[in-house]
Amino acid sequence: MTAYVRYAGPDGAPHDGILEGTDVVSGGSRIALGSVKLLAPCAPTKIVCVGRNYADHAKELGSTPPAEPLLFFKPPSAVIGPGDDIVYPRQSKRVDYEGELAAVIGRRCRDVSPEQAHEFVRGFTAFNDVTARDLQRTDDQWARAKGFDTFASIGPCIVDGVDPSKLRIRTMLNGEVKQDAPTALMLVDVWSLVAYASAAFTLEPGDVLATGTPSGVGPMQPGDVVSVEIDGIGKLTNRVVGR
Amino acid sequence: MTAYVRYAGPDGAPHDGILEGTDVVSGGSRIALGSVKLLAPCAPTKIVCVGRNYADHAKELGSTPPAEPLLFFKPPSAVIGPGDDIVYPRQSKRVDYEGELAAVIGRRCRDVSPEQAHEFVRGFTAFNDVTARDLQRTDDQWARAKGFDTFASIGPCIVDGVDPSKLRIRTMLNGEVKQDAPTALMLVDVWSLVAYASAAFTLEPGDVLATGTPSGVGPMQPGDVVSVEIDGIGKLTNRVVGR
Repeated sequence: MTAYVRYAGPDGAPHDGILEGTDVVSGGSRIALGSVKLLAPCAPTKIVCVGRNYADHAKELGSTPPAEPLLFFKPPSAVIGPGDDIVYPRQSKRVDYEGELAAVIGRRCRDVSPEQAHEFVRGFTAFNDVTARDLQRTDDQWARAKGFDTFASIGPCIVDGVDPSKLRIRTMLNGEVKQDAPTALMLVDVWSLVAYASAAFTLEPGDVLATGTPSGVGPMQPGDVVSVEIDGIGKLTNRVVGR
Repeated sequence: MTAYVRYAGPDGAPHDGILEGTDVVSGGSRIALGSVKLLAPCAPTKIVCVGRNYADHAKELGSTPPAEPLLFFKPPSAVIGPGDDIVYPRQSKRVDYEGELAAVIGRRCRDVSPEQAHEFVRGFTAFNDVTARDLQRTDDQWARAKGFDTFASIGPCIVDGVDPSKLRIRTMLNGEVKQDAPTALMLVDVWSLVAYASAAFTLEPGDVLATGTPSGVGPMQPGDVVSVEIDGIGKLTNRVVGR
């Protein structure tokens, strides 16, 4: 099991490292985690998200699970990393957290089977599928409601060698647990989702597949601190700020 | 007025050039257009598309124009250039052409006004918003129906110095004119669309904003040849092939 991170070097450029305890190891040197600025652990060319992949969440939205996986995109411009601010857009009065497990693609793939999928996944990370719930309801498509700048928080690291069906997602708002669910409750498992997405789109290294949120979603306000924690992966924390 | 192209060099890598008559001029050398493989003229980090931006097209789909611009994304993996094949996915039985005018972003922008927008647009190109119409109707979101590999054809060149409200879009299927409309019929003009999109997403150089299709959309079959032609820009031609 290895935990991969990206961090800002002295020049501000992204550097790759490996997390060992409280240190980041990179090219033979060892830096205290506390003294580096972590970035999103990958640079996706696209972010494929899955809607209503937990029955309880579909229910809390007054909806039902879809017959097939419900895919939508977030743009790369929405990506932030651990410690970055989620910016409340002026267009929305209701911005929600959605804690999720995300798979990060390691090798280009197209039309792979669920059985092959693990060969193309580099590892897993935490994801906050930030959503302007009011605009999601009024806009026909979700591009805007889910695509605002800062609405795709990824991190803190990519961990390989874990079984994605045996993890636990918890989302905390100002320290209070709001979402807490085993990933075993996913309606369509990670490998089947990779296969399904790859049957439509070539997946590139660094691309992110966010696998849906469990029940317990709710609103955030400027000043709030939100964390998505996945056992064995880590905690992804962001602050919400006004514009 | 300059027409910018990208073409594959002897090494297969993309090179930038300028179209002069039937020549591509690049770094002091001049190559006959017929002897180079043109590529999509830009490499977008995201493609922002607009739905139902012509009243007659909304009507032909049995719909009405949206109150605000209806935005959706196509992923970079969908991009093809002039002369490339559109691949009919096995998941669909009905793949349509949608000829459109697209703006290509030249400078990073966020939250610009319609009056400022022209400063951030490099120029205009033709776009085929290829759509699996059957899946668009059955999938909740359009990511898959509009996001398949090869479903975003862009080109042949990016032309600056044109007035995007005074162009004419024609789409030909096997030489027969299927769509023919002035861009003046757009419900929301190009500059307002750039402003609206940039109020949600940072637009990056090379990003594409496709401005919607006029009426006359229809199905294509493997073996068909489809062209989107915009006066003053050029003709974007692709062949449709089975998988």
